[in-house]
Amino acid sequence: MPELAEAREAIVAAGQRLDRFGWVPATAGNISVRLRDGTVAITRSGGHKGFLDADGVIRVGLDGRSLREGDRPSAETGLHCGIYRRFPEAGAVLHGHSVPVTVLSRLAGESIRLEGYELLKAFPGLATHAAAVELPVFDNDQDIGRLQDAVETRWGGAASVLPGYLLRGHGIYVWGADMPQALMRLEAVEFMLRCELEARRLS
Amino acid sequence: MPELAEAREAIVAAGQRLDRFGWVPATAGNISVRLRDGTVAITRSGGHKGFLDADGVIRVGLDGRSLREGDRPSAETGLHCGIYRRFPEAGAVLHGHSVPVTVLSRLAGESIRLEGYELLKAFPGLATHAAAVELPVFDNDQDIGRLQDAVETRWGGAASVLPGYLLRGHGIYVWGADMPQALMRLEAVEFMLRCELEARRLS
Amino acid sequence: MPELAEAREAIVAAGQRLDRFGWVPATAGNISVRLRDGTVAITRSGGHKGFLDADGVIRVGLDGRSLREGDRPSAETGLHCGIYRRFPEAGAVLHGHSVPVTVLSRLAGESIRLEGYELLKAFPGLATHAAAVELPVFDNDQDIGRLQDAVETRWGGAASVLPGYLLRGHGIYVWGADMPQALMRLEAVEFMLRCELEARRLS
Amino acid sequence: MPELAEAREAIVAAGQRLDRFGWVPATAGNISVRLRDGTVAITRSGGHKGFLDADGVIRVGLDGRSLREGDRPSAETGLHCGIYRRFPEAGAVLHGHSVPVTVLSRLAGESIRLEGYELLKAFPGLATHAAAVELPVFDNDQDIGRLQDAVETRWGGAASVLPGYLLRGHGIYVWGADMPQALMRLEAVEFMLRCELEARRLS
Repeated sequence: MPELAEAREAIVAAGQRLDRFGWVPATAGNISVRLRDGTVAITRSGGHKGFLDADGVIRVGLDGRSLREGDRPSAETGLHCGIYRRFPEAGAVLHGHSVPVTVLSRLAGESIRLEGYELLKAFPGLATHAAAVELPVFDNDQDIGRLQDAVETRWGGAASVLPGYLLRGHGIYVWGADMPQALMRLEAVEFMLRCELEARRLS
Repeated sequence: MPELAEAREAIVAAGQRLDRFGWVPATAGNISVRLRDGTVAITRSGGHKGFLDADGVIRVGLDGRSLREGDRPSAETGLHCGIYRRFPEAGAVLHGHSVPVTVLSRLAGESIRLEGYELLKAFPGLATHAAAVELPVFDNDQDIGRLQDAVETRWGGAASVLPGYLLRGHGIYVWGADMPQALMRLEAVEFMLRCELEARRLS
Repeated sequence: MPELAEAREAIVAAGQRLDRFGWVPATAGNISVRLRDGTVAITRSGGHKGFLDADGVIRVGLDGRSLREGDRPSAETGLHCGIYRRFPEAGAVLHGHSVPVTVLSRLAGESIRLEGYELLKAFPGLATHAAAVELPVFDNDQDIGRLQDAVETRWGGAASVLPGYLLRGHGIYVWGADMPQALMRLEAVEFMLRCELEARRLS
Repeated sequence: MPELAEAREAIVAAGQRLDRFGWVPATAGNISVRLRDGTVAITRSGGHKGFLDADGVIRVGLDGRSLREGDRPSAETGLHCGIYRRFPEAGAVLHGHSVPVTVLSRLAGESIRLEGYELLKAFPGLATHAAAVELPVFDNDQDIGRLQDAVETRWGGAASVLPGYLLRGHGIYVWGADMPQALMRLEAVEFMLRCELEARRLS
C-alpha cells in the first residue's frame, strides 16, 4: 500500500493514460488508491482527470468523507469507498467513460456477456479464454448512496465477484490490487467491449 | 477575464488539444477569448489551428472588426462576436469540425436530440442525466451576417440558451465562461455525438 | 521554392505528421518538394516515411531519375514528377494510404463525388460548400509509366484540374503550391472521405 | 543478428510503437529477437509491453526454456521459438492483439483472404497487388505445445510460407528478417484487416 505522495503520482499518471485513450472526457471519470493508513486518495471533484497535478488528489476516509476542510471529493466517492470496504484486496479503483461502454450499456439488460476472448484471462479465476463473464450493468442514478446499495445487492455475499461493472449511459468501474492491475483490467475490458461493438455492426 | 498574452497562450494550447482530437483539420476551425478590456482575441484567418503561435492570434472589437491594420481575422468572427454580445457571461468560444458533427448534422433536421447521457451534466441547468437537450442545427451559409441572424432568431429572447449549435456539413460552436469550461463542453458534446453515430450504425 | 536542406526538413516533418494519422503504414507512401533549381527532393525507396532522417530524402530530375549514383528514389517517383511537369505551380506532392481511401476507392467507379462539405473550400476555385468535386479514381498499376499516361489522359488539356486523385486499393495523391498547402489539402480530403465512409455505414 | 543489448532496445521501442496503436493492451502480446549466439531475447511474462525496460526482456534457448534461473518468459514463447526453428531467416517475431484481428478471426474459417491491396507487396514473393494471400487462422489453445503442432501441420513442408498467422479471438503472429521488417509486415497486415473490417460494415 502506498503513501500519499506515491499514490498521487500513480493517479496523475493514470489520468494521463486514460485521457490518451479518450476515457476521461470533459472532467468525467475519477481515480483512487487505498493508502497505507487505510484512508483513500481520490481525485478532487470537477477537474479534468487528464491534466491532474498533486493538488487534484485529496484524501477521504473509508466512509467517503473528505479529511480536510474545504476539500470536495469526486461526486462518486461513495462508489470507490464501497469497493474498498467490500473488497479488502482492492488497492486501486478506476472510473472512466468510453464510447463502447456508453453505447453498449444503453442497449444491454442487466449484464453484458463476454466470451471467447483471450483477454478474459485478465479477470481473476479465469485462466482460459473458454470461459465467459457477465459484466453487470446498473441503471444510472444521481443518488450515489442508492446506487451503491443496488451494486451491493447484486454482489450479495458471493465469495468471488467480478472486479468491474457498468453504469448505463455513464461509464465503467474497474478495480485491482494496485494501479497497474486496475489499469490492466480496464484496458482488457475496454478492448473486449470495442470488439463487441465492432462485431455488432457486422450483423 | 484575461489580458491578451494570457488569452494567446490559452488559444494556442486549445488549438493543440483540438488538433490532437482531429477537430481542426486543414486550417478549419477557430478559437476566441473575451479580453478584460471587452475586445476579443481570435485566431487569424487561414492558419492551421493546431500549430498556432502568438502571431496567429489577433484582436477584434465586439463588432468583429480587426483593431490593427492588416490583420485578417477568422472568416467566422461574426459568429464568435454574436455570442459575446448576446451572452455577457461567455468568455471563450470554440469552433471545430469533427466527423460525427459533420455526418450527423447532414442527416439532422433542425436539431439533434441528446438524452440519457451522464455527460449532459456538462450543460448549465442540467444536473441529471435524465434530461434531454436539443442541439440546434443551422444550414451552412457563406454569408456570415445572414447566418448570425438565423442563429439569433432561433435564440429569440429566451432566458436560458444551450451554449452550442451545429452548422450543417460544417462544424460546431460551443462556448463557456472561460477556456476550460468551453473545452469541457466541447469534449462532452463530441463524446455524445460519437456515441450517437456508433448507436445509429447498430440499427 | 526551397533549397535542399529546407525541403528535407519539410519532408521529414510531413512524414511524422502523416504517420501520426496512420497514413504512411509499412513503408508505404512518399513525399516530395520542388527545389529552387528545378529538381525534386523525394523520399528514398523503402524507408518508413514516419521515421525519416535527412538521408531518407534524395534528389531527382524532373524526368524522375536520381541525380546521384546509388540513390534509389521512391517507386512512384514518376507520378510525382508527372505532377511537377504538368503543373508549374505545384511545389509539394504527398502520397499516403488511409483506410477510407483504400476502402472507398475499391467500391468506386471512375471518381468519388464530394459535395456539401465546408472543407471543399480547400480546393482552388471553390469558395463555397455548395459546389461538388469529382475526385478521380484510377485502377492501380505496377507499371508507373502506364499509370502516369492514364492520369495525364484524364487530365487532358483542362485549364483547371483538381489537385488530387486516388489509386484504387492503393492510396491518394494530393499536391499544392508548397508543403503547408499540400498538407492542408490532404487533411481536408481525408476528413471528407472519413465522413463519406461513416455516412455509408448508416445507410 | 544483434547482441542482447541492441535486441533489448529494439524490443522496448517496438513495444512502445505497438502500444501507440493499441496493439498490446493489458499486458497482452509479446516480442522477440534472435540473437547472434542463436538464443532468443523475448519479453518477460506479465509485464505491459508498452512500458518495457531492459529488465522486461530475458533470454531463452531455441527450445523456449529460460537461460537464467527465476526468469519466466512470455507464456507463448513456444510459438516464437517454433518460428525461429522452422525459418532460419526469421530474426524478429511480433505478437499483438488488435480489434480487427480479434473480430475478424472470430468470424473466419481456416483463413482470411486478402486481395487487391497494394500493401500485399509487404509479403515476400508478392511484387504486385494483383495477387491474393490466405492468412491462416488457428483456434486458440492454452496448450502452447499443441497449438504449435497445429501451426506446424498447416505449414507442412512448403518451401514458401506466409510470415504470419492469426489465433482466433486472440491475436496475430508476424515475423521478418529483423525488427524493422517484422514491424513493417505487422503494420501492413493490420492496415489491410482494418480495411476488411470497414468494408464488411458497408455490406
